[in-house]
Amino acid sequence: MTQDIRICFVGDSFVNGTGDETSLGWAGRLCGEANRICQVTYYNLGVRRDTSKDLMLRWHQECNIRLPDFVDGRIVISCGVNDTVIEGGKQRVNTDESAANIREILHEAQKRYKVIMVGPPPVGEHEQDKRIQGVSTAFARECGALGIPYIDLFSVLSLDDTYKSEVSSNDGAHPKSTGYLKMAKIISYSPSWWFHSP
Amino acid sequence: MTQDIRICFVGDSFVNGTGDETSLGWAGRLCGEANRICQVTYYNLGVRRDTSKDLMLRWHQECNIRLPDFVDGRIVISCGVNDTVIEGGKQRVNTDESAANIREILHEAQKRYKVIMVGPPPVGEHEQDKRIQGVSTAFARECGALGIPYIDLFSVLSLDDTYKSEVSSNDGAHPKSTGYLKMAKIISYSPSWWFHSP
Repeated sequence: MTQDIRICFVGDSFVNGTGDETSLGWAGRLCGEANRICQVTYYNLGVRRDTSKDLMLRWHQECNIRLPDFVDGRIVISCGVNDTVIEGGKQRVNTDESAANIREILHEAQKRYKVIMVGPPPVGEHEQDKRIQGVSTAFARECGALGIPYIDLFSVLSLDDTYKSEVSSNDGAHPKSTGYLKMAKIISYSPSWWFHSP
Repeated sequence: MTQDIRICFVGDSFVNGTGDETSLGWAGRLCGEANRICQVTYYNLGVRRDTSKDLMLRWHQECNIRLPDFVDGRIVISCGVNDTVIEGGKQRVNTDESAANIREILHEAQKRYKVIMVGPPPVGEHEQDKRIQGVSTAFARECGALGIPYIDLFSVLSLDDTYKSEVSSNDGAHPKSTGYLKMAKIISYSPSWWFHSP
């Protein structure tokens, strides 16, 4: 019998693939790639503007109806950039609270599903990128404590001038298809990723 | 200012794109095509096994968080095949109830969003296809009564031997990428579809 693998990608606009003219985003590309090895069901639950707090409020219900007990249910979670946005003079979610939100989600999620976390990418604005790096480091620590793989996008993409120039010539936050392809490659090259071509 | 169009595709495994090795499904293909004309945000809310009743229970909450008031929010709804499946000797949802569920969803949805309905495709099994045709006809009637465009897949695909042979050589319900591309074309060629290349 073949495995019935179904993956929920829970996150923000970067998970949604906002800005990717192909509609695939990094999540769709990863599933397309995985389909060469085995069939996976792809559920994209990325929502624009969502912070770690928004995910905490909806992940369980949305994943629960998509991942019934009889399937090999998996969750990839990714957020952080929206937490670091300054609105009305303060950060939408401060880093300690972001870390606590993610801890709560991961702790519950790993009881029932295989889980991977993907970190937030840089946006190319110096001050916000410092905050994103802080959140990314905090998320990596939470994942480490729970034994959940953390795939870091920030470090690699911060050094990538092509990525940063695509973002700045787009909307100052999201890349287009070239950047999303790069994100998909960073994740698929990670030893923690679930599917590797023979 | 550019329009901020966001579309929720609410439905079943055919909306999800199950079986499409490219991860795009018909919904992703339509949004990729639309992106050549204007930027659209693509939310795929297709869930495997979902009937019209399941959609009735979740569509509002899932669309509400994805389509805030300040965007041009749109909904494409599609279901029906799962309603016609026989389980434990009876149909999962009978046709009158399917029609009533859809009526309730459409009636609420059109108060706030632009709405299109896409009908269910045939599966290639004679008895079930008769039931699917019945549901499709009932959905078309509901849409007509509410002034909502209904794009019929059943009639076109029933006559399409290439489509039917792809389905039967796959899992007996879903096509692969060729069939999903065909569905996307049927929808994009419809005068009711929102995006047409100049």
